[in-house]
Amino acid sequence: MAEKTLYQCCAEPQKVDFTLRETLPSLGWQILNIAGKDAHGKGFGVDALNADNHTWVLSRIAFEFYRRPRQYEEYTVATWISDYGRLLSTRNFTLTDAAGEVFGAAVSQWAMIDLEKRTAVDLSWVGREHHDAMVEEPSPVERPRKVRNVTPTATTTHKIVYSDIDFNRHVNTMRYFDMMIDMLPLEVLEGDFKYRLDIHFLKESRFGQTLEVGCELRDGVALFEITTDEGVVAVRAAIEWSK
Amino acid sequence: MAEKTLYQCCAEPQKVDFTLRETLPSLGWQILNIAGKDAHGKGFGVDALNADNHTWVLSRIAFEFYRRPRQYEEYTVATWISDYGRLLSTRNFTLTDAAGEVFGAAVSQWAMIDLEKRTAVDLSWVGREHHDAMVEEPSPVERPRKVRNVTPTATTTHKIVYSDIDFNRHVNTMRYFDMMIDMLPLEVLEGDFKYRLDIHFLKESRFGQTLEVGCELRDGVALFEITTDEGVVAVRAAIEWSK
Repeated sequence: MAEKTLYQCCAEPQKVDFTLRETLPSLGWQILNIAGKDAHGKGFGVDALNADNHTWVLSRIAFEFYRRPRQYEEYTVATWISDYGRLLSTRNFTLTDAAGEVFGAAVSQWAMIDLEKRTAVDLSWVGREHHDAMVEEPSPVERPRKVRNVTPTATTTHKIVYSDIDFNRHVNTMRYFDMMIDMLPLEVLEGDFKYRLDIHFLKESRFGQTLEVGCELRDGVALFEITTDEGVVAVRAAIEWSK
Repeated sequence: MAEKTLYQCCAEPQKVDFTLRETLPSLGWQILNIAGKDAHGKGFGVDALNADNHTWVLSRIAFEFYRRPRQYEEYTVATWISDYGRLLSTRNFTLTDAAGEVFGAAVSQWAMIDLEKRTAVDLSWVGREHHDAMVEEPSPVERPRKVRNVTPTATTTHKIVYSDIDFNRHVNTMRYFDMMIDMLPLEVLEGDFKYRLDIHFLKESRFGQTLEVGCELRDGVALFEITTDEGVVAVRAAIEWSK
């Protein structure tokens, strides 16, 4: 059994908005970047998997942020894998400030895909082979919730361009994040709120397609459904905020 | 007189495109993030300036990249300030790989703005007060060139949203970068090219405005002009590529 791995981060000016606090998409980006870095360091990064024509695909993620770091504030991200199911592995994160206070957490669930067959790979062998990399501590917050029945009250369209796509030629997780955040009322991003985000990646979307981003705004929560121009639901998500 | 400051970077999976090399916007982001980090470390970051109601504004930047780092490749960014003029200070960068080869460089020129009066501040006092932070080594590549007379052959529009704006409530430098890169033919980004980018920031653009991005595509070079819906030119730029 392993220990959690720690990464030092800093909310540099490039990462903050006009409230001088790190943006939600930047925090999300940081967390996913650490996932990639940590997997690589432990020998099961996308580069190692690519050799077998496999890759990791993010299936679901939940984030909770109780506050956002101030400009130049330093914080520590701890990450650990708590389990491998047959189809999903669970990677957890906590964000801790200099005073030792946990101000954020995330739980991500990853599938392994065979790039040739485009099907999910049974993860049991990873669990056996990389058992040493697991940490026996449960997820710090509730695992990603399902989001259903979104009835958009507003929609925007987005043509997928080069800067949207990732190493798999699919829209980058964080760009979906941007598209959703950009539909929230500015007050939700300006205020001192606690946030919880649940995102499900149902189907990839690709360069050249046009996405429709639907948002159903309710009291303290926004539901999202992102659909390709072929009518396929790519992402469903919920963003909640509260004082 | 000071020494150049060195920062370690890594082309994690979140930063690469489908060629598995770090994207040009990611390299640019990395360079600008280091500018903010380094200024802060030396006592003249935006946080120190904000106390006097001043801030740094990027006026011009030139990048040269002879190759792009491969996924997970580690590299070193060196940065130093070579001079303070009355209105512009010059911060330089080189990017060096593990073999000691310089594969990229940048020269940035920054103005200091009085946030209340919205005018440029005379930088002479910074030059005097922070003389110790300067390094007597010239810029590694030609300083940002002027770009004039752009006659767009293609245009797109872009409504400015929350995720586009920075701590000054203006469109983030790197989002302009994305908008331009996204208008290039994909072959220019897929191939093994050397790149030079010259970007001039003429006027800020703000949340809620709509930008028109004009691109004039020639042989081996694309010229750009980004205009606000008030008809003001916000950015002019040139991207060159060659084998």
